[in-house]
Amino acid sequence: MLPIVSIVMGSVSDLPVMEKAAAFLDGMEVPFEMQALSAHRTPSEVEAFAKGAAGRGVKVVIAAAGMSAHLAGVIASMTTLPVIGVPVNSSLDGMDALLSIVQMPPGIPVATVGINGALNAAILAVQILATSDTELRDKLAAYKEDLKKKVVKANEDLSHIRFTYKTN
Amino acid sequence: MLPIVSIVMGSVSDLPVMEKAAAFLDGMEVPFEMQALSAHRTPSEVEAFAKGAAGRGVKVVIAAAGMSAHLAGVIASMTTLPVIGVPVNSSLDGMDALLSIVQMPPGIPVATVGINGALNAAILAVQILATSDTELRDKLAAYKEDLKKKVVKANEDLSHIRFTYKTN
Amino acid sequence: MLPIVSIVMGSVSDLPVMEKAAAFLDGMEVPFEMQALSAHRTPSEVEAFAKGAAGRGVKVVIAAAGMSAHLAGVIASMTTLPVIGVPVNSSLDGMDALLSIVQMPPGIPVATVGINGALNAAILAVQILATSDTELRDKLAAYKEDLKKKVVKANEDLSHIRFTYKTN
Amino acid sequence: MLPIVSIVMGSVSDLPVMEKAAAFLDGMEVPFEMQALSAHRTPSEVEAFAKGAAGRGVKVVIAAAGMSAHLAGVIASMTTLPVIGVPVNSSLDGMDALLSIVQMPPGIPVATVGINGALNAAILAVQILATSDTELRDKLAAYKEDLKKKVVKANEDLSHIRFTYKTN
Amino acid sequence: MLPIVSIVMGSVSDLPVMEKAAAFLDGMEVPFEMQALSAHRTPSEVEAFAKGAAGRGVKVVIAAAGMSAHLAGVIASMTTLPVIGVPVNSSLDGMDALLSIVQMPPGIPVATVGINGALNAAILAVQILATSDTELRDKLAAYKEDLKKKVVKANEDLSHIRFTYKTN
Amino acid sequence: MLPIVSIVMGSVSDLPVMEKAAAFLDGMEVPFEMQALSAHRTPSEVEAFAKGAAGRGVKVVIAAAGMSAHLAGVIASMTTLPVIGVPVNSSLDGMDALLSIVQMPPGIPVATVGINGALNAAILAVQILATSDTELRDKLAAYKEDLKKKVVKANEDLSHIRFTYKTN
Amino acid sequence: MLPIVSIVMGSVSDLPVMEKAAAFLDGMEVPFEMQALSAHRTPSEVEAFAKGAAGRGVKVVIAAAGMSAHLAGVIASMTTLPVIGVPVNSSLDGMDALLSIVQMPPGIPVATVGINGALNAAILAVQILATSDTELRDKLAAYKEDLKKKVVKANEDLSHIRFTYKTN
Amino acid sequence: MLPIVSIVMGSVSDLPVMEKAAAFLDGMEVPFEMQALSAHRTPSEVEAFAKGAAGRGVKVVIAAAGMSAHLAGVIASMTTLPVIGVPVNSSLDGMDALLSIVQMPPGIPVATVGINGALNAAILAVQILATSDTELRDKLAAYKEDLKKKVVKANEDLSHIRFTYKTN
Repeated sequence: MLPIVSIVMGSVSDLPVMEKAAAFLDGMEVPFEMQALSAHRTPSEVEAFAKGAAGRGVKVVIAAAGMSAHLAGVIASMTTLPVIGVPVNSSLDGMDALLSIVQMPPGIPVATVGINGALNAAILAVQILATSDTELRDKLAAYKEDLKKKVVKANEDLSHIRFTYKTN
Repeated sequence: MLPIVSIVMGSVSDLPVMEKAAAFLDGMEVPFEMQALSAHRTPSEVEAFAKGAAGRGVKVVIAAAGMSAHLAGVIASMTTLPVIGVPVNSSLDGMDALLSIVQMPPGIPVATVGINGALNAAILAVQILATSDTELRDKLAAYKEDLKKKVVKANEDLSHIRFTYKTN
Repeated sequence: MLPIVSIVMGSVSDLPVMEKAAAFLDGMEVPFEMQALSAHRTPSEVEAFAKGAAGRGVKVVIAAAGMSAHLAGVIASMTTLPVIGVPVNSSLDGMDALLSIVQMPPGIPVATVGINGALNAAILAVQILATSDTELRDKLAAYKEDLKKKVVKANEDLSHIRFTYKTN
Repeated sequence: MLPIVSIVMGSVSDLPVMEKAAAFLDGMEVPFEMQALSAHRTPSEVEAFAKGAAGRGVKVVIAAAGMSAHLAGVIASMTTLPVIGVPVNSSLDGMDALLSIVQMPPGIPVATVGINGALNAAILAVQILATSDTELRDKLAAYKEDLKKKVVKANEDLSHIRFTYKTN
Repeated sequence: MLPIVSIVMGSVSDLPVMEKAAAFLDGMEVPFEMQALSAHRTPSEVEAFAKGAAGRGVKVVIAAAGMSAHLAGVIASMTTLPVIGVPVNSSLDGMDALLSIVQMPPGIPVATVGINGALNAAILAVQILATSDTELRDKLAAYKEDLKKKVVKANEDLSHIRFTYKTN
Repeated sequence: MLPIVSIVMGSVSDLPVMEKAAAFLDGMEVPFEMQALSAHRTPSEVEAFAKGAAGRGVKVVIAAAGMSAHLAGVIASMTTLPVIGVPVNSSLDGMDALLSIVQMPPGIPVATVGINGALNAAILAVQILATSDTELRDKLAAYKEDLKKKVVKANEDLSHIRFTYKTN
Repeated sequence: MLPIVSIVMGSVSDLPVMEKAAAFLDGMEVPFEMQALSAHRTPSEVEAFAKGAAGRGVKVVIAAAGMSAHLAGVIASMTTLPVIGVPVNSSLDGMDALLSIVQMPPGIPVATVGINGALNAAILAVQILATSDTELRDKLAAYKEDLKKKVVKANEDLSHIRFTYKTN
Repeated sequence: MLPIVSIVMGSVSDLPVMEKAAAFLDGMEVPFEMQALSAHRTPSEVEAFAKGAAGRGVKVVIAAAGMSAHLAGVIASMTTLPVIGVPVNSSLDGMDALLSIVQMPPGIPVATVGINGALNAAILAVQILATSDTELRDKLAAYKEDLKKKVVKANEDLSHIRFTYKTN
């Protein structure tokens, strides 16, 4: 089945962060692909990818990078597909990557999620797809219900804990 | 015609920033609505809005706020529609709003654009709609071509400027 | 005995930080409750909590969260009880949570304490209760005296330490 | 009538920021006093103030300062009254004052509001007083209803604005 | 005469900052060109420029941009010429542009100068050219001598100023 | 009379900031000199100054600079006199200058005052001189008393101001 | 022998940082004392200390604290002795302590050294004492010479290291 | 063979960061030297180095330092050779060193690379040398091709990984 979400990351070292995105898409049965493409080391591969993605049926791109994180912006400059940017924390607590991704100039947006926010990037991709896919919308609603149940359950567990004041 | 993009802002003082989003959607002939809703001052109105939006046919929400900018996150917690967050600079150069919007916990993404990035929020909304609307995709491609022409034109103008070294 | 202080946290992972607040209230014999409620994952539970708290006899709310920490602000928007916010350090050294909690818009304050400042949140809650409870005021004065004694004792220990200059 | 809220500020230059606090307390008919006391220039006056406040019937202190803003913390160290700190922006966008006020060590909390958040400081003071004063609680509820109406009204105004796409 | 330094800027709005670079090169009689090229709006023009620069005889590139400033990094990824990056302050005091330019991943350096540091970028370009051009080295030495004289002159002026203590 | 405090600044553009230091020293009748010396543009003049200062009778150096503010550190590396550093705000709100001055490596301290803190630098210089000059100590005590009186006076003025709640 | 330098720290947990200051003073044979005094937990002890120090013969105070580090400023407000502030890193990489200490208001300087800069604080104290003690000045010159020798020695060691390019 | 690139570092503790620069130059067969020179501890050695480098045939200087990193700027002030600055992370995530190095005043540029960016500093040095050495340019092109191959290879490896959604 052809991928409709494409995950790209600037370096294989971003894989431990990004596999949460892959797992979520897998769970939602959304066909996806995942690859390492560096805006700086493989610019022509990035260009080929960005210009060809829509034609291959990709509907949403997730791009993750750290430091001077240009990958998402470079892809966004070469496609009209929505591009979701994931700032990866590899220096300065991820602030350099966050600012490099989110502060795009007028005309070329990147939909930025939080630092190391791979799961949220995947959820956002599915939300975008769900704007024209009611089945996916139902799956998202179920997922959201699940999140809530976990917090409710956690709360029940909390109610049994007792605390004592230590005077030292 | 029913709005499919809904722009909400935390305060009418955000209007000068957000009207660029409205103008872009208008130019793209995308039906939209715009309103002021405060996560903190009108929480029940926000809730009614967030829970009702999808049912009314809204497909994408753009939410703008400054300072402790909770609006986008609060809406995102109550809908499965994609929510685009616009950090408005009303203190600390907009860093407080940016972090309040982008650093969402796992499970509830907000698609964040740059500080005061209203135009990019609108473009992103149209990119999302265009994932299932080829006509919009063509309009976006035309818009992108336009952006390029302006830079190319600017370049031609630059080539006629002469610079002289001032020694003072 | 009905709780008059209510501690809520955005995630059970905040418990190691927040149990210091519980222990202090326990030591002061102030009846309290503690629960996990997520502004983003369980918004309707948060709403039910916030709207019902005053009616149940709660007088002060302590709300702790990390990242885009909206919990305290969302509760504050739905009650006139004083809400104490605790920024939890789960990213960016806690700066994102601090700014998300403290930079509230005019009209809806959150009484913010330092990053991971659970103990101070509990002391502040007791200080608030003590404005109409002289017994609690006496307990606080005793606690303060205790703090002082510890520093005075530490000082005595210091006076016996000898230092030698190492030339390497 | 004896003041029950005391507003102190580190410098008279903070008055334009702090008069919003005074105006709110005035509107709520809460008796208050206001004075300039500098932690660094008048330390013994600060001490006299802090140690005497509770005895004079003051129930809540609001302390505002900029830069190395020690005033709130110094007062908090000498009283068990709740102390609300207002970071005043006089350098570094107010970040120095915010961190100087909010990052108090364990044992001595300061209830910090946002940068230049004088109005919120006054509202918080009234919320604290309202924990033992039902009349004040009703006034706060009315104030909150008012805030909401203003946003609702602003929204109605917004719905009549038309936007046009400018192509330049 | 063919240009050996090429100044590119992300937007014509950067011209007031960058004309200092042009003026310096003009004064040093170093042939240069200047153009507006946007990494995000005209990616294929940037590519054509970057890949063709060395072949046309360009020896050093100066690239200026603001916000998510990708221009310098994108050019550096497509050439082995030294690329000097100038962060332009158009938001966040220029910190976003600085981090976007300087924090390049291993393998693709950008020689970054200070925020709005157009003059220093041009001096650095001449220093690079001067590594194989003794005439330029002499001109740089003369320029440096000039800088020193201005400070020495300023010092003489200072020595005539008198100061009086105002007691208000 | 030979100067015992020497004020140096990286650029004459720092003069409006630094003249407060000169005025204070003048008021205290402490002989001083003031000059512009740039660590980067006149390094040998800085060296001559730093190495000669103690021999000429200078006892304390005040060095002010902005941006990559190396002046204070460079002087400190070449003398054993105490060097007071004044970070001048000429970019990034002065944070670059503050960090460049205060974060000295082990072995070479700079006594750093706040951003644009010229007056405090001069007071600190006099405090240092006063460790071996009782007359100066008395003058400082008088100055401190004066500061206190101004705040006390300001307080009296405040007590006559009336505030009214504006409902708009 | 009576102490002429007094080291105070906000908490005994600062001792591992501050013992470098003690060791240096010990090596320089400068009589000193060291104690824990908290601006917030033992305000009256701090006051007694600050007001009595000069009378007991203390000439320089070194005050170290973390977080909302008020200790140095509070002491400086109650004495005309020079006060050296050491920001201790116990949160936010020490930025909160640095800003709390260095950004003092006009009139009350604190001579701030780098984060955890205990050694530099001690050297600065000796530099201050040396303004009226030629023997100490000679010791400082010898210490500086020593520092230089270590770097020169390190350089010799470096010259024997060989490096090889690893191609993986 | 005489060195044409000179690597200096502020402290031998920077060696683990800087040896990547040495290894790269070694691999490119560019003769280099490496030494420890401290702007603050050995100022006259730094001066001798900076003034003599060009005469000894050095064409590019790489200077690395942490904290108040003055080394690169000080050298740049005494030579017309291009100076590449490497901010070393030894405090504040390296932000103090980055700002101390990059924010040079007009007239004296430092070509700054990313925090701990020793490899990029060496590549930049070779790019500078390659402006007048076609053999080096070819080596750089080959190196760049190599970088690309590694990313392409990594991508192939990624395509074989399978992800599964974990529901806990």
